[in-house]
Amino acid sequence: MKYGIVAFPSKRLQDLANTYRKRYDPHVALITPHMTLKDSFDASEEEIKTVVQQLNELVSKHQPLVIHASRISSFFPATNTIYFRIEPTEQLTVFHKELQEGIPFGTEKHVFVPHITIAQKLTASEHDDIFGQLRMSGIDEKDIIDRIHLVYQLEDGSWTTYETFRLTGAE
Amino acid sequence: MKYGIVAFPSKRLQDLANTYRKRYDPHVALITPHMTLKDSFDASEEEIKTVVQQLNELVSKHQPLVIHASRISSFFPATNTIYFRIEPTEQLTVFHKELQEGIPFGTEKHVFVPHITIAQKLTASEHDDIFGQLRMSGIDEKDIIDRIHLVYQLEDGSWTTYETFRLTGAE
Repeated sequence: MKYGIVAFPSKRLQDLANTYRKRYDPHVALITPHMTLKDSFDASEEEIKTVVQQLNELVSKHQPLVIHASRISSFFPATNTIYFRIEPTEQLTVFHKELQEGIPFGTEKHVFVPHITIAQKLTASEHDDIFGQLRMSGIDEKDIIDRIHLVYQLEDGSWTTYETFRLTGAE
Repeated sequence: MKYGIVAFPSKRLQDLANTYRKRYDPHVALITPHMTLKDSFDASEEEIKTVVQQLNELVSKHQPLVIHASRISSFFPATNTIYFRIEPTEQLTVFHKELQEGIPFGTEKHVFVPHITIAQKLTASEHDDIFGQLRMSGIDEKDIIDRIHLVYQLEDGSWTTYETFRLTGAE
């Protein structure tokens, strides 16, 4: 089964992301707005039990993540994906590194650029038009991520939450 | 904020429900296939903390729910909703009753008929055609529900999981 690890920001930030996604993101129906913490990976039922244990251990050591969506950026020319850029912080970097090391499944497909996708699968000219507009509207939203979600993918591409993990650490 | 309490069945059963939902259920994009345990209710941030405590207490007393999707039924003439009927069992009835009593938010809109919706918002003639076909194809799937999900609704109608609760009781 295919799993992933994500953080859903506050309802306010999700609603804001959806105002763009409903127009520009064909994946809007597959999962609500999120920051991907670990790209999708395959795991068996036995393996996922280990992952759950490792996640429980990880979240017991980390306190809620303070995030700041500071501008609208694009992965162009690598892809035509437009996103809310989440400022990289030491807290996020350390958390992500420990997550990767603690859960040795799948391979990291990209360098970790924390973000919330708001538009994707655009043609080159759509991308240029839309990014030109969105970049100017900008964003400046702070938020607290106090839990992360282990999710799994159904055959139609949509994602269901398997389990939530609350960040309860003191560090 | 608007919350609800649902159980997602196994991936196999969700995939099966989606083969119908992708054609016949305009809510397919809002949430993955589920059995509603408590209809949507409004709660404040303070109130939802109490709900979380109550849910933690409840799941510590109940073991995983054994369910059997035994046939395809319809709520017609009340609504044109078609669903996988989940056989009512004493275990499900007791669990639902304790959930209602433990979480005194919202009102029960219907008698509890455990089900997984596969088609809704149909016109009368669509309903008759589709139900006629689906009733004959039938279903006979057993499953174990080992966790329930507290979910909240975004402005576009989609649902995000707030927290999962594993049924860990011995009863």
